Amino acid sequence: MKLALINIKQLVTVASQGKRMKVGAEMRDLGIIENGAVMIENETITWVGRMEDLSMGDLNETDVVDCTNYVVIPGFVDSHTHLVFAGSREDEFAMRSAGATYQEIAERGGGILNTVRRVRAASKKELKKFARKYIHNMLKQGTTVVEIKSGYGLDMDNEIKMLEAIAELGREEVMTIVSTFLGAHAIPPEFKENKSDYIRLITNKMIPYIAQRNLAEFCDVFCEQGYFDLQETETILSSAKQAGLALKLHAEELSPLGGSELAARLNTFSVDHLEHITENGIKALAESQTVATLLPGVSFFLNHQYAPARAMIDAGVPVAIATDFNPGSCMSYSMPLMMTIACTHMKMTPEETITATTLNAAAALNRSHEYGSIEVGKKADVVIFDIPNYKFLPYHFGENHVYRTIKHGVLLEF
Amino acid sequence: MKLALINIKQLVTVASQGKRMKVGAEMRDLGIIENGAVMIENETITWVGRMEDLSMGDLNETDVVDCTNYVVIPGFVDSHTHLVFAGSREDEFAMRSAGATYQEIAERGGGILNTVRRVRAASKKELKKFARKYIHNMLKQGTTVVEIKSGYGLDMDNEIKMLEAIAELGREEVMTIVSTFLGAHAIPPEFKENKSDYIRLITNKMIPYIAQRNLAEFCDVFCEQGYFDLQETETILSSAKQAGLALKLHAEELSPLGGSELAARLNTFSVDHLEHITENGIKALAESQTVATLLPGVSFFLNHQYAPARAMIDAGVPVAIATDFNPGSCMSYSMPLMMTIACTHMKMTPEETITATTLNAAAALNRSHEYGSIEVGKKADVVIFDIPNYKFLPYHFGENHVYRTIKHGVLLEF
Repeated sequence: MKLALINIKQLVTVASQGKRMKVGAEMRDLGIIENGAVMIENETITWVGRMEDLSMGDLNETDVVDCTNYVVIPGFVDSHTHLVFAGSREDEFAMRSAGATYQEIAERGGGILNTVRRVRAASKKELKKFARKYIHNMLKQGTTVVEIKSGYGLDMDNEIKMLEAIAELGREEVMTIVSTFLGAHAIPPEFKENKSDYIRLITNKMIPYIAQRNLAEFCDVFCEQGYFDLQETETILSSAKQAGLALKLHAEELSPLGGSELAARLNTFSVDHLEHITENGIKALAESQTVATLLPGVSFFLNHQYAPARAMIDAGVPVAIATDFNPGSCMSYSMPLMMTIACTHMKMTPEETITATTLNAAAALNRSHEYGSIEVGKKADVVIFDIPNYKFLPYHFGENHVYRTIKHGVLLEF
Repeated sequence: MKLALINIKQLVTVASQGKRMKVGAEMRDLGIIENGAVMIENETITWVGRMEDLSMGDLNETDVVDCTNYVVIPGFVDSHTHLVFAGSREDEFAMRSAGATYQEIAERGGGILNTVRRVRAASKKELKKFARKYIHNMLKQGTTVVEIKSGYGLDMDNEIKMLEAIAELGREEVMTIVSTFLGAHAIPPEFKENKSDYIRLITNKMIPYIAQRNLAEFCDVFCEQGYFDLQETETILSSAKQAGLALKLHAEELSPLGGSELAARLNTFSVDHLEHITENGIKALAESQTVATLLPGVSFFLNHQYAPARAMIDAGVPVAIATDFNPGSCMSYSMPLMMTIACTHMKMTPEETITATTLNAAAALNRSHEYGSIEVGKKADVVIFDIPNYKFLPYHFGENHVYRTIKHGVLLEF
């Protein structure tokens, strides 16, 4: 199976030149080739360059896609989602539009625990049914790698059910799926008065079981007031690390607890949210290898404050952007729309948002050796957009500009 | 030609019961029928009601669409756009993401005058080519009536070229198009030092020519500091009224000049923008028949302050929502996304945003006798959405949920 994209008006390679991710001014270097071409064999990129350097003999026995009017960029990597869920929370959305806050709704039994009730009542098959539709639509919008977290089960059986659903989707769908265990997403109602027992359940039973059966690659914790504090977070993550899981962290979403400093010290692959990160937190991350994953859609959807993306990039923190797709705080899986929000509300440039949704997002999932750029040897996850130049991706918003999505070398049909 | 939509899970009629538009609490009454049906003959709605009241004999010789899993609402009316233009302004978007303000960019020769240069250099055919693509995509997203303004020509020949392009698109496309003359969109460079001469050109030459040839239905003015002040605005609108044009007004976008009070006094069909409207302005509008057309996408795209929608609705002002689709201040024609922004940033409820994008928007165009609700006798502009209930329209954002668009009784194919 050979596939060639030729006459590409603008080929955005996001070339990493062997780097795991980009920081500072590097984030604005997209490795653009005007009038470019990409050669793919089976699921791998075998050649990237200018049309004038391609000999037509190379195109023998090759399927050719003419991209004269198109822009080609790497498939989006959505490195933070909760896309396996049941039920929906449009009523909470309507309550917020009428003035209620996210925290008030959670206190009234809404929020995460609302979805937990629905997920516990759903079968694995039902969970997969909804997730499939979302995954399909994400591929249509150019996302080719997605991370999915558990965290709506909050007991042994239901967390396992979620992780098994995620694992099965990974085997059954063309989307590349990375699985994260987030048992520490909230305190389950039955442990409301004894959180430490729940933490012991996580560290002594859930994590060993999940690690042994390879049911998750990452372990994540919601480090926040009313959820898990710094000490509890470290206890859980240390236990996960010992069991062989890689680490992630939800931090500083609603208040500055110091999760960024903890993430830097534990060398987590990513620390996510950061709407309330402090100067110290930024400094700690700049000195670490941890990717700061920002979630513009959450601030937009909840009308909350935005993470200080500009200060972080200028300080040398590697920044990624993800959707956080979930029914409560961001009911959207549109990566281009997250780029628009980042440009209009976080002072990120269009170039930075592309690096943040491709190479740096792949690094947040420990996948930048395989995904996130169009370079020889990487997986052929490539998206063809019907736009005149890459800036249109964030600029012309509220429209799906994907002409074709190529996943592992296959031109997908929708 | 007979068409029936049957078994509609949720039929949102926005029934007006003969009213031109809805105000206050009426805006939250969507006239919902669960398990409903709609009958259409040629381009007109002939029956609306509950499935149980429909006799199956009524379906003889009728094309039937089963809407068991779908929500049906009136086609969106986008009552404020500048969708005929040439060139694009993604570079200004990138400059803003790097910190420049909209006003600074305009002072450096960007902004409206940037597009004026490109429109003057374009042929009518070129203008129509780009517009056609946008119109097609709008229908795909559920918009069935659109207003388009001139205002990027700013001289006799080029304003006429724009209005002729709009008129021809209206005849050639299935979209219903309403045309507005906006010669007073900015001061053209050649009149920079003598604005009053340009105003005389508008009132003495452009308006009579345009009115005589029916090239526009409305006349609009950009009433703003550095553009046209209150007195100049009134001069132009009075001249338009005398020539038989209906009136609209851009007001209080960047500063509170008092355009709302002027609009109320002149009884314009709409007054648009209103990001900086005062309490007095709200009071004047509440006592008038003028529709306040809010443009959430502009505040979002420019990161400017939002119009006080909540205060306006609570005061009894009829509120509409439009996209303001244009290359500088809102590069989007997505009505559902505008609804999301209105819910998350303007404290409008999902119900209010539906009334504001249908019936009240039709009233802003003097078209609510024909469009904006699903009622017997109205034009059959009806959209079928693949969502479980109407709240999903603003809630699940960044996705096109349209299953089928019906325009004047015809099921469109894309």
